[in-house]
Amino acid sequence: MQYETIILQEAPRQLIVTISRPDRGNSINSMLIHELGAVLDLAESMPECRTVVIEGAPGLFCTGMDFQEASDIEGTENLRISDYMLLLKRFTLSAKVIICRLDGKVIAGGVGLVAASDLVLSTERTELSLSEALWGLLPCCVIPFLIRRVGFQKAYSMTLTTKPISAREAHAIHLVDELTDHLDEALRKLTLRLNLLDDRIIVDMKRYFRQMSGITPEIEQAATIEFARLAAQPQVQRNITNYVTRGVFPWERKG
Amino acid sequence: MQYETIILQEAPRQLIVTISRPDRGNSINSMLIHELGAVLDLAESMPECRTVVIEGAPGLFCTGMDFQEASDIEGTENLRISDYMLLLKRFTLSAKVIICRLDGKVIAGGVGLVAASDLVLSTERTELSLSEALWGLLPCCVIPFLIRRVGFQKAYSMTLTTKPISAREAHAIHLVDELTDHLDEALRKLTLRLNLLDDRIIVDMKRYFRQMSGITPEIEQAATIEFARLAAQPQVQRNITNYVTRGVFPWERKG
Amino acid sequence: MQYETIILQEAPRQLIVTISRPDRGNSINSMLIHELGAVLDLAESMPECRTVVIEGAPGLFCTGMDFQEASDIEGTENLRISDYMLLLKRFTLSAKVIICRLDGKVIAGGVGLVAASDLVLSTERTELSLSEALWGLLPCCVIPFLIRRVGFQKAYSMTLTTKPISAREAHAIHLVDELTDHLDEALRKLTLRLNLLDDRIIVDMKRYFRQMSGITPEIEQAATIEFARLAAQPQVQRNITNYVTRGVFPWERKG
Repeated sequence: MQYETIILQEAPRQLIVTISRPDRGNSINSMLIHELGAVLDLAESMPECRTVVIEGAPGLFCTGMDFQEASDIEGTENLRISDYMLLLKRFTLSAKVIICRLDGKVIAGGVGLVAASDLVLSTERTELSLSEALWGLLPCCVIPFLIRRVGFQKAYSMTLTTKPISAREAHAIHLVDELTDHLDEALRKLTLRLNLLDDRIIVDMKRYFRQMSGITPEIEQAATIEFARLAAQPQVQRNITNYVTRGVFPWERKG
Repeated sequence: MQYETIILQEAPRQLIVTISRPDRGNSINSMLIHELGAVLDLAESMPECRTVVIEGAPGLFCTGMDFQEASDIEGTENLRISDYMLLLKRFTLSAKVIICRLDGKVIAGGVGLVAASDLVLSTERTELSLSEALWGLLPCCVIPFLIRRVGFQKAYSMTLTTKPISAREAHAIHLVDELTDHLDEALRKLTLRLNLLDDRIIVDMKRYFRQMSGITPEIEQAATIEFARLAAQPQVQRNITNYVTRGVFPWERKG
Repeated sequence: MQYETIILQEAPRQLIVTISRPDRGNSINSMLIHELGAVLDLAESMPECRTVVIEGAPGLFCTGMDFQEASDIEGTENLRISDYMLLLKRFTLSAKVIICRLDGKVIAGGVGLVAASDLVLSTERTELSLSEALWGLLPCCVIPFLIRRVGFQKAYSMTLTTKPISAREAHAIHLVDELTDHLDEALRKLTLRLNLLDDRIIVDMKRYFRQMSGITPEIEQAATIEFARLAAQPQVQRNITNYVTRGVFPWERKG
């Protein structure tokens, strides 16, 4: 299979996915969501596969929604946000362990991929931020998974202040599980450990923890509905259009 | 408008409230609850206003319930505790960002004002404690908001041990969002950042996070009912009377 | 009363229980569950008693389920796991304050005793781990109490990675409430403080916090049902038999 937005490598019992949209700041478009889903399908079809590793470019893991695409295909927002939410949910229910390998910026929707992953390894130079509120939006789909990891207040203050947090801070609040200067070595050790687990236990574990996560179908649906509602507001549309057509950020008109 | 228990100042896009009951240890009486509510009304009526800052006296932010008043107006307890709960709830749903600026002790009900605020700035000399259990009471209204910020166990251990925690510890558990020796500068930077946000997003954000907070009308009601039940117990009444009339703390009769 | 699996000492307003199964690695068998329950009964019958302290041997607090017994009495698993769950629940509802005093390893089901306790004191040499997934099991009963203390992600990563965490890390995530080199002194101070509390407030406090804990009868039941289901799987039975009869750990056949 040919991929447009990712590079896929195979290692023993492991798939490694590199998000690769260098000309679009590794932002999330429909194709990326689709192709990440396809990789999960592939992994599920490989009984020997235990882990799926997701990484970005050096210095940039992933930014949020691709605003260019969002402004092109107005009206289909609701559909795409459901696809994004479904992808995050699949991370948390997959029979494979999803590991994020961070070494750079993570912004907006990119934080959702991280928050919904099973385990997150990161170097010191990672920085994570939720910039949505500056655009008149909210990270509706990210929030339930983020609360699961960092608790209510940190998810709330990240959303409200829109201020980036460092890898060190992210580690302190459990958004990063392991902080390391040696990503390869840390990943190798973690993979060895995970490969020791009994075969069927991952999927049982995820299903069991799901019950305790507070994330229900109602919350998933509320997330996509609220995001679609916000995205449809004229002010938000103007913010996106001004950025896409003239390169002006919303706060530059206000500051 | 004239205020009895607070001093109100206006800054650009900001209201600053100073709790001021120097002769009563900045404790919470009916009038303070009423006047804080009036300030929220005022802020809501000012479209330009983005933030409401609450501060206390240097060295003392706020203690809990005014026991003198509580012993005077026996029988109306239930009413007042509902007013207090409603005030905390309004903090979390207001279209304005509520910021606590701490530089001193915070005790019992005062911790509720802090826990229900959107963001909390503090100097190192702040100390927070829940002393209610020593009186035979529980911080029923504080607990749901405190759990939202610090998680179950820390809210529980603060309630059970009644031991003060330092600003540094409060910061580590997210009861304080920013620890600083330069409150004015930290507040100025935070305010600038919050002023960049899209106008209507605050109220949407709060409503959305409310759904994820675990605080329901049932929990709010259970809180006021349980507090009223405990406050009506003869032993608690005796504890308060002994303190108000003779200055004797409950633990002094036992130690 | 004579005890088989514990040593019971009485101190002023305090019972001290030492788990003592030196020949079985301080693992949890039916008798230990029964005798810990009997100590709670005794404590409840002593109005003056305020605290129950649980400790293990120096260097080893408690390991998990006694696999020898588990393999002997196949078919009664469901019953025993309910007894274990009920014991943890009693910790969180008892009118006495349950304090764990850790100075050594805590493994699998032993972590449940710690997580369900009201307060946990520990020296630096303690280490806690959830090894269940290596056996094809999950710490189903431990998880709800662990999430209550450390949040979702840390409970999840401990279960998934099966990696031990140090006392220092356990303290950072609130699985240990106080880290100290002077257990006796720390316990003495804590006990003095707890003895100051109003008599009936402990049971009211626990009942109130229970409502906020997210642990419902449905979750308790789901925990025991899922554990019994996993324990009955042929692969898990083989893992236990291989260990009991030949001393082979599951991961030794795979590594």
